[in-house]
Amino acid sequence: MNYSREKLMEKVSEQMPQKRWQHTLGVMDTSVLLARRYGGDAEKAELAAILHDVAKYWPVKDMEAVILDSPEADRELLQHEKQLWHSEVGYIVARRDYGVEDPEVLNAIRWHTSGRVGMSLLDKIVCLADYMEPGRDFPGVERIRELAEHSLEEALVAGLDNTISHLLQQGKVIYPQTVLTRNDLLIQLKSVKDHNG
Amino acid sequence: MNYSREKLMEKVSEQMPQKRWQHTLGVMDTSVLLARRYGGDAEKAELAAILHDVAKYWPVKDMEAVILDSPEADRELLQHEKQLWHSEVGYIVARRDYGVEDPEVLNAIRWHTSGRVGMSLLDKIVCLADYMEPGRDFPGVERIRELAEHSLEEALVAGLDNTISHLLQQGKVIYPQTVLTRNDLLIQLKSVKDHNG
Repeated sequence: MNYSREKLMEKVSEQMPQKRWQHTLGVMDTSVLLARRYGGDAEKAELAAILHDVAKYWPVKDMEAVILDSPEADRELLQHEKQLWHSEVGYIVARRDYGVEDPEVLNAIRWHTSGRVGMSLLDKIVCLADYMEPGRDFPGVERIRELAEHSLEEALVAGLDNTISHLLQQGKVIYPQTVLTRNDLLIQLKSVKDHNG
Repeated sequence: MNYSREKLMEKVSEQMPQKRWQHTLGVMDTSVLLARRYGGDAEKAELAAILHDVAKYWPVKDMEAVILDSPEADRELLQHEKQLWHSEVGYIVARRDYGVEDPEVLNAIRWHTSGRVGMSLLDKIVCLADYMEPGRDFPGVERIRELAEHSLEEALVAGLDNTISHLLQQGKVIYPQTVLTRNDLLIQLKSVKDHNG
């Protein structure tokens, strides 16, 4: 890491409108809370939260350039909706511009929008915090917060359900990764249930 | 083809309960109607419709055996819900047991449940007929029938939306192919709109 926590927060906050920074502060708080509740690393969760939307308000051309210039970036993303690009770009610039080296933190940034098959505990914490931080206000958010009291996976499925329903209603393309993530979480939940009888 | 139309209908009807055969008769009529409306081959559409559910009521073990024994079957399907297997099995047995050789007809049987990226006109006709034949009665079916008056693709998207919504509500796994098909149809619709200004 190239910066102190305070300096990092200052620099990242300059990358987005004040309102989005308020959202980031909410995701930080909620990530720490969820990490404590579910035995995750609160410090790593908070670091990923600080950086998760670092590229959200970048010009599309700049996001595209990062994805094209970075050998480890998934270029196929450029075929999908631009709203999905910022997670991948955040993953790249967290290391390149802010010196974050921890792969757990970098992955939690990378997968915070769509999730992935085989999400780590930290991935789940940051993705869920992004759905349910106190500033979020959409139909269904209270249900997600309730589920988050006892199950990260059930709350995440409810969040992803919400995203998919919204895209159905809007007649928009559904990112296949979102569906694969939801299916994987359902299978995890089923295997826990089967195990517990 | 090893059989006359009447003999084929008689043999296929023996593979399922009377109620499902009534559904098949509905899919036949609607497939012919849609083929005439959209310039498809009514005879091929009807043949695919006769056979589309031929394996729907087969024992799971028999369906599994067909998929495992046939080199061209997609074995990955066995990882997914059993409801999806009958289309693949129908595709195999339409040729093996009934002598159907026409690849357009065989594909329309194969893809009638999930659709596929790059659906043919015949694929679309049979898949949509399966959603909207007169015996179907679910919330949203009237909307699908209305859309089918002017657009195969819009009606199919509405059908797939219905399937995905249902699986969301039931907390069930969503077959990724269903989402890929819907995305592809949306892209086709968008390119038509862009083309028409």
